[in-house]
Amino acid sequence: MALSNKNLLGISELSKVDISLILDTADSFKEISGRAIKKVPTLRGRTIVNLFLEPSTRTRISFEIAAKRLSADVINVSEKASSVVKGECLKDTAKTLEALNADMVIIRHRAAGAAHLLSRSINSRIINAGDGVHEHPTQSLLDLYTIKSKLGKIKGLKIAIVGDICHSRVARSNIQAFQKMGADVILIGPPTLIPLEIERLGVSVYYNLDEVINNIDVIYLLRIQAERIEDNRFPSIREYISRFGINKEKLNKTKDNMIIMHPGPMNRGIEITSDVADLPQSLVTDQVANGIAVRMAVIFQMLGGGKVG
Amino acid sequence: MALSNKNLLGISELSKVDISLILDTADSFKEISGRAIKKVPTLRGRTIVNLFLEPSTRTRISFEIAAKRLSADVINVSEKASSVVKGECLKDTAKTLEALNADMVIIRHRAAGAAHLLSRSINSRIINAGDGVHEHPTQSLLDLYTIKSKLGKIKGLKIAIVGDICHSRVARSNIQAFQKMGADVILIGPPTLIPLEIERLGVSVYYNLDEVINNIDVIYLLRIQAERIEDNRFPSIREYISRFGINKEKLNKTKDNMIIMHPGPMNRGIEITSDVADLPQSLVTDQVANGIAVRMAVIFQMLGGGKVG
Amino acid sequence: MALSNKNLLGISELSKVDISLILDTADSFKEISGRAIKKVPTLRGRTIVNLFLEPSTRTRISFEIAAKRLSADVINVSEKASSVVKGECLKDTAKTLEALNADMVIIRHRAAGAAHLLSRSINSRIINAGDGVHEHPTQSLLDLYTIKSKLGKIKGLKIAIVGDICHSRVARSNIQAFQKMGADVILIGPPTLIPLEIERLGVSVYYNLDEVINNIDVIYLLRIQAERIEDNRFPSIREYISRFGINKEKLNKTKDNMIIMHPGPMNRGIEITSDVADLPQSLVTDQVANGIAVRMAVIFQMLGGGKVG
Repeated sequence: MALSNKNLLGISELSKVDISLILDTADSFKEISGRAIKKVPTLRGRTIVNLFLEPSTRTRISFEIAAKRLSADVINVSEKASSVVKGECLKDTAKTLEALNADMVIIRHRAAGAAHLLSRSINSRIINAGDGVHEHPTQSLLDLYTIKSKLGKIKGLKIAIVGDICHSRVARSNIQAFQKMGADVILIGPPTLIPLEIERLGVSVYYNLDEVINNIDVIYLLRIQAERIEDNRFPSIREYISRFGINKEKLNKTKDNMIIMHPGPMNRGIEITSDVADLPQSLVTDQVANGIAVRMAVIFQMLGGGKVG
Repeated sequence: MALSNKNLLGISELSKVDISLILDTADSFKEISGRAIKKVPTLRGRTIVNLFLEPSTRTRISFEIAAKRLSADVINVSEKASSVVKGECLKDTAKTLEALNADMVIIRHRAAGAAHLLSRSINSRIINAGDGVHEHPTQSLLDLYTIKSKLGKIKGLKIAIVGDICHSRVARSNIQAFQKMGADVILIGPPTLIPLEIERLGVSVYYNLDEVINNIDVIYLLRIQAERIEDNRFPSIREYISRFGINKEKLNKTKDNMIIMHPGPMNRGIEITSDVADLPQSLVTDQVANGIAVRMAVIFQMLGGGKVG
Repeated sequence: MALSNKNLLGISELSKVDISLILDTADSFKEISGRAIKKVPTLRGRTIVNLFLEPSTRTRISFEIAAKRLSADVINVSEKASSVVKGECLKDTAKTLEALNADMVIIRHRAAGAAHLLSRSINSRIINAGDGVHEHPTQSLLDLYTIKSKLGKIKGLKIAIVGDICHSRVARSNIQAFQKMGADVILIGPPTLIPLEIERLGVSVYYNLDEVINNIDVIYLLRIQAERIEDNRFPSIREYISRFGINKEKLNKTKDNMIIMHPGPMNRGIEITSDVADLPQSLVTDQVANGIAVRMAVIFQMLGGGKVG
């Protein structure tokens, strides 16, 4: 059994079967990352290029560790060292990477659609590690894995995504991922930060967390970017915190086993108070840990699959 | 059999026998880069420092992949992270690298002669990966390999190098390399960008591509640097394109099996039109692919040689 | 036998027995770095994060080579790529690194106490690779190793540390390390750069190198930072050189087997004249070479110890 597509460009291209295959494979890799020798020889001699043309240390490290634990050779190319693309169109970069016999290119890029563009000019496998406000599919896969590990299922859950929906590729990927696996998605945020007519996607929209907090299984907080604040896209930080932030008091109104997630890095004191961030139901570090296992699973399935190390 | 010198500082120091040894060795490594497991254990436990004090992602990546496919440990030191040389003369950098037991240092530096200087204070093997406008010998070796692979020989070919000869280390290395292997070298460019009295080297010089285009086997385009344009070193981009750029129309006047090469990255629309860049006779991506094999061959021969993995 | 602490945060936390264990282990690794295959499989599958939030190529490279020669997987995170900590407190960085199952984090940070802080929120082993003006313990260990290799002992030696004691974490660590192993420590520098009442630590203080130069076994020169000069913390470079610099003439007054050390990079012409820097009694490159062996020993002992490769 293998994934139905050659590349991982977005959640939209994955079938439910694909997603289940990745989550099941991640289980095996999760165990390997807990060993002293956290490494399998599966992808020895494969070349994986980490092409990060927008800075993101956390995601770069996660993919780098995942690839190294599979014994692949990892070549990091960061934005600062971007002469690979200086005066060069993405098509030529693609041809160069292919000529280097890169088995896989993991691309993070400021522009929506960059991973798709790359995939059209190259035979190497492509993973979209975030393209503008478009998609960030491995984030969704690790989020699904985290929810399933904690709550035992995804189907039928009520999941609220809270914050700046407009500018979030995580939101865009997660709405699809959660719905695809049978969850009910609720979007919550200031009206200025929620796309118009997004209800067409089958989500419900609220402008205040309090209205729904007593009836959700997962609260998924997005990071507020400083530039949005300067943008005057919402009245004030104080008002944002009061309407969309989570604190101990609001937590009292929730279901007992509600879990809190965040793609990181958290703005402690804004999306979440520091005490709540450190509670057991806050799964931020679980998400990071699961990110390694899920990315190992994705890379492994895309480069051949078979028996896990 | 081994190379006649300990270091690879310039084409001038290589004998014809050395060059043939490298090209033959590259054949074996070319095959390895086509395998699923693109790796041989030959240089396991060797330490190779990639000392790039002038940014060049493409060349850095090529050497890094070559070294990793030979199983060496690669340490990247880039310009941004240059505290290795902050307040430190190149001599002390050399002593430091030697004390680290680096088996090989691959150096890219803005100053002509930097690789030679380094080689005088260090026992580690040195590869010059480009020093100012002086030399870039591995580029020439991969170009020779590419020509020989495509046209079956180098001896007796007419090779035109087109563009800014004055400021190009690639031109400087390639003139020697092509002549050494028996080719006839023609230089073409604006008079302001061709060194005075360069005919003494045994090359012919033309100021217009059209004069010779019907009679050459290889057209080797150099990259026009934006700063030369600002320099007023030639009338205008439009005129440069018309006299020295290659397009479909000019291609009609060439020999049937003429090949087009470029060290990359190309300025599509200047040295070459985009449609021509994508034709089969344009070998830019072959050059990139061959770069890995040739650099593996060079590193391998310099660090001991013997049987290829 | 193992180290008494889980982390290496400062010399203050090491017992004499710990230090002896590290120096003895370094002997074995010193031999390995002299081999053609400079690598042992000891730490295969371990993940070591090189978290350098203050630039320091020399120290980063030394740890990276040490870890790779032990076969660990090394993940470099440099200041430039610091989105790992953008808008993130050190506590969240710690949690992230732990969630990645990093076996060890080697941290360089501008702030004194950063390594301690990190160690309180994380189970991964921590090595302090320099925290502000506080400590730099592996530098001291490699200095002890270098002295012992050259002079056969440390106990009873008179060691002069010369220069800017106030702003030097190397001085702070070395005073403790040298005293702990039984040496007599003398501090020499301009009064403005020696902490008040430092004699309480059991050191003697002089304001002119000439007063003691005839009676010391080791002269340990510190690097003068350009910013101190601009600070007006001492009269002039010329006066600094005359009172605290070492040159051939002063060398005539010393014991025959006196050795000169410097943590690097040297300001040739300031702390030391260029001719003296290149004499055999100047051990700067020995220190660099021993740095690899000592760091291998520290990493090895902290991640399990046992039989060396």
